[in-house]
Amino acid sequence: EKNFFLIAGPCVVESEALLEEVAEKVYGICKRLGIPYVFKASYRKANRTSASSFTGLGDGTGLHLLKKIKDKYSLPVTSDIHAHEEAAIAAEYIDILQIPAFLCRQTDLLIAAAETGKIVNVKKGQFLSGPSMKFAVEKIKNAGNEKVMLTERGNTFGYQDLVVDYRNITWMKEHGTPVIMDCTHSLQQPNQTSGVTGGNPGLIGTIAKAAIATGADGLFIETHPNPAAAKSDGANMLRLDLLEGLLEQLVKLRKAVV
Amino acid sequence: EKNFFLIAGPCVVESEALLEEVAEKVYGICKRLGIPYVFKASYRKANRTSASSFTGLGDGTGLHLLKKIKDKYSLPVTSDIHAHEEAAIAAEYIDILQIPAFLCRQTDLLIAAAETGKIVNVKKGQFLSGPSMKFAVEKIKNAGNEKVMLTERGNTFGYQDLVVDYRNITWMKEHGTPVIMDCTHSLQQPNQTSGVTGGNPGLIGTIAKAAIATGADGLFIETHPNPAAAKSDGANMLRLDLLEGLLEQLVKLRKAVV
Amino acid sequence: EKNFFLIAGPCVVESEALLEEVAEKVYGICKRLGIPYVFKASYRKANRTSASSFTGLGDGTGLHLLKKIKDKYSLPVTSDIHAHEEAAIAAEYIDILQIPAFLCRQTDLLIAAAETGKIVNVKKGQFLSGPSMKFAVEKIKNAGNEKVMLTERGNTFGYQDLVVDYRNITWMKEHGTPVIMDCTHSLQQPNQTSGVTGGNPGLIGTIAKAAIATGADGLFIETHPNPAAAKSDGANMLRLDLLEGLLEQLVKLRKAVV
Amino acid sequence: EKNFFLIAGPCVVESEALLEEVAEKVYGICKRLGIPYVFKASYRKANRTSASSFTGLGDGTGLHLLKKIKDKYSLPVTSDIHAHEEAAIAAEYIDILQIPAFLCRQTDLLIAAAETGKIVNVKKGQFLSGPSMKFAVEKIKNAGNEKVMLTERGNTFGYQDLVVDYRNITWMKEHGTPVIMDCTHSLQQPNQTSGVTGGNPGLIGTIAKAAIATGADGLFIETHPNPAAAKSDGANMLRLDLLEGLLEQLVKLRKAVV
Repeated sequence: EKNFFLIAGPCVVESEALLEEVAEKVYGICKRLGIPYVFKASYRKANRTSASSFTGLGDGTGLHLLKKIKDKYSLPVTSDIHAHEEAAIAAEYIDILQIPAFLCRQTDLLIAAAETGKIVNVKKGQFLSGPSMKFAVEKIKNAGNEKVMLTERGNTFGYQDLVVDYRNITWMKEHGTPVIMDCTHSLQQPNQTSGVTGGNPGLIGTIAKAAIATGADGLFIETHPNPAAAKSDGANMLRLDLLEGLLEQLVKLRKAVV
Repeated sequence: EKNFFLIAGPCVVESEALLEEVAEKVYGICKRLGIPYVFKASYRKANRTSASSFTGLGDGTGLHLLKKIKDKYSLPVTSDIHAHEEAAIAAEYIDILQIPAFLCRQTDLLIAAAETGKIVNVKKGQFLSGPSMKFAVEKIKNAGNEKVMLTERGNTFGYQDLVVDYRNITWMKEHGTPVIMDCTHSLQQPNQTSGVTGGNPGLIGTIAKAAIATGADGLFIETHPNPAAAKSDGANMLRLDLLEGLLEQLVKLRKAVV
Repeated sequence: EKNFFLIAGPCVVESEALLEEVAEKVYGICKRLGIPYVFKASYRKANRTSASSFTGLGDGTGLHLLKKIKDKYSLPVTSDIHAHEEAAIAAEYIDILQIPAFLCRQTDLLIAAAETGKIVNVKKGQFLSGPSMKFAVEKIKNAGNEKVMLTERGNTFGYQDLVVDYRNITWMKEHGTPVIMDCTHSLQQPNQTSGVTGGNPGLIGTIAKAAIATGADGLFIETHPNPAAAKSDGANMLRLDLLEGLLEQLVKLRKAVV
Repeated sequence: EKNFFLIAGPCVVESEALLEEVAEKVYGICKRLGIPYVFKASYRKANRTSASSFTGLGDGTGLHLLKKIKDKYSLPVTSDIHAHEEAAIAAEYIDILQIPAFLCRQTDLLIAAAETGKIVNVKKGQFLSGPSMKFAVEKIKNAGNEKVMLTERGNTFGYQDLVVDYRNITWMKEHGTPVIMDCTHSLQQPNQTSGVTGGNPGLIGTIAKAAIATGADGLFIETHPNPAAAKSDGANMLRLDLLEGLLEQLVKLRKAVV
């Protein structure tokens, strides 16, 4: 039947050149492989472990650069928002408002996002089960917005690890919403003494293949031409030149599933 | 040496009569037992599982009623705040700003709380380790406020349970801040299919005793004359008439520790 | 390339008629679908939660009935063993000695199994990581037996749940051994107050698909014509008439992976 | 009322001189502090992570040396057993048969231990809850032996950590048996890539204090004059010269509890 969709881009808006490089490359790959593509970059990082970490270029600049990508490639774009008053502002620039996992229970934020009329993509908290995301879906639908998506990003497994429970893909699809696998943040290794969250990008393929096999509708993959030099999430992002080979395998797998 | 302090009250500001009943009773007990007492009630609940749950009487009313208790009994009062713009408003009424566990990584909220100059009590996220709370402390101190406290409230243990790891008491005391044990929310049973978080108040004594033995500086206990009729957290609150007996045991234990 | 193999049968040797019914049916399905088939049933259950649970027909009878199936269908057969002195006896009847997860660290048992020269299939403990199974593999190889297989069966996730971490498939394949996914016991819900382990057979497809997608070499599925009437693991076994449809999907998926 | 009892000694029988040194020292401390003392050392280690680790001096020698300590100091002695046929042999030398945590579900082993008529101390599996230890108690009592004790030693918390849930002390006391806190193995850090389990002996005091406060009847502490040179569990044992100070604090705490 139809293919999975892809939400991809660098973790944070570092520069216009970076957005342009990633968007152009991924746009071409997705066009060739028949994958609907949503460009992603955060215009602000509001919950870095350490206050001294990079948080963005400023909200206005970040949103403006996202809009440029959107217009140039005719792509939907997405970013996360962190406070209810950001929802209406961000909605002028972006197509999908992403609710961070730590904030998925904040009713005011969910409602403000819902009221923009944009698609709202709620990331499942590391402390929540798939079935309990029903209540997040209801908060948004009750605010008059039926366009909800849910994203799996792993659950707390001891202090310094996350585990992806694929039962959650099955359980969240029962809420009647598209379900996305976040292949990047699921591999985080939190609570490092350094104050910098770790990761394991060598396992992105494992996480993505299991998601497609179990019926995920979309994948979220952060990618960067040089992760080691990235200003956020460098430990987890997929090197841009590895994306195409991975997507080819996943498209083949998808055809065997649907 | 000195005794532990107690943060106690009903989960949410349900009515003036309730605040009055609880404050008068607990004030008397603490005076007799030599326990410094901080009155607690939330003026708003922003992260209920389900949007249809009770969230408060309105912020203005809630804060006003807290201030009345503070003035009548000359008690410090505390409540949680949920968005950075609430910090300055709440600080006009209350003495200790409590940061909810889900929000303990939100840099803007921590800084806004710090900038009020009030004591900031950060609850450890269910997904965080005690050592990593160092970064929350630094965010507040770097904003010019040395008055930080940290609260343990359990860690994610499967989907429907929390576990209290008492190593966190030891680890958080190394950050040089007072450490509080939240004996109420540590016993939550999240992710219930009903949309109402469960609990186990019969174990409050177990949680509190281990905390005192391992050096906690303060205890947080939600209490209500009739938990079954409470508008929030009814499954976890201690029945008000059981508080005095528990505190007597804990004071005795404390004397053997210090 | 080549297909995955299947280890399947009822949990325990309940009767000759049951073994015959299951073996005949699964043998036919696997022949049609090109799946190498290993017949499985335990001749004894040594670690039931409760001492009053059914443990088998007696070791001699159980082993004898397994051998009859082996001979009639020319199938390899497997069962678990629980003490080092069982290894040599069981090896006279069965082809693959399975080491139960709770016992995967018992050096004497692993060595006794290794010394039979039969294939040894070690189930990963609910408390172990995939990388640490390296030491189990070494214990067997150092005893002179290169024929080792490893089985994933989920990890402890709170008291009453298990979670399958598919990173373990990738990690265990790095030990150079075939890796099997136990789709039955991975769905157990341990520590039930009833003393009977629970389960969720509706999710067997989810568990199996993710395993094939991530490169598992074999699947382990307990199946029974009427799980509700089974004498062990009734809560987890797949109804025999649902097996064929599932295997057809999995074979299709496998072709997209290799 | 009455004091807690102490099970203490080196992890494994390394030499007669070591047993003598530890027993003499701890005997003196416990006599002074009024603590009933049980000498502990394993005569064999059957489940080391790696097959190349030290496993003992040979069963006969190990049991013989334990008996010498028992006779010289008129102390009860304990060790773990690992297979049902060991029970009767070990029972000729030792007073308390300890069932290792990984083996606490092995019915044959529990029954063989019960049938010796000795006290049976079952360690709770890292994968089990306190309430479910009811079934282990029943297996022993049904075999005609009422002398059962249960030991808490932490639960799996991610791959490389254990957490002690003190609710288990409360829950296991409800089974009507003495409950012991294993302060040594609760601090293990399993699944290390080195094949040597890690630990954190600096937290033994935290673990022990919380146990006494929540009503544990006994403590289990492995101790060694020079843990860094020990042949097993070196990462977790308490330095022998630190034991007395810790016990003094714990005795003081105990008096405030009972």
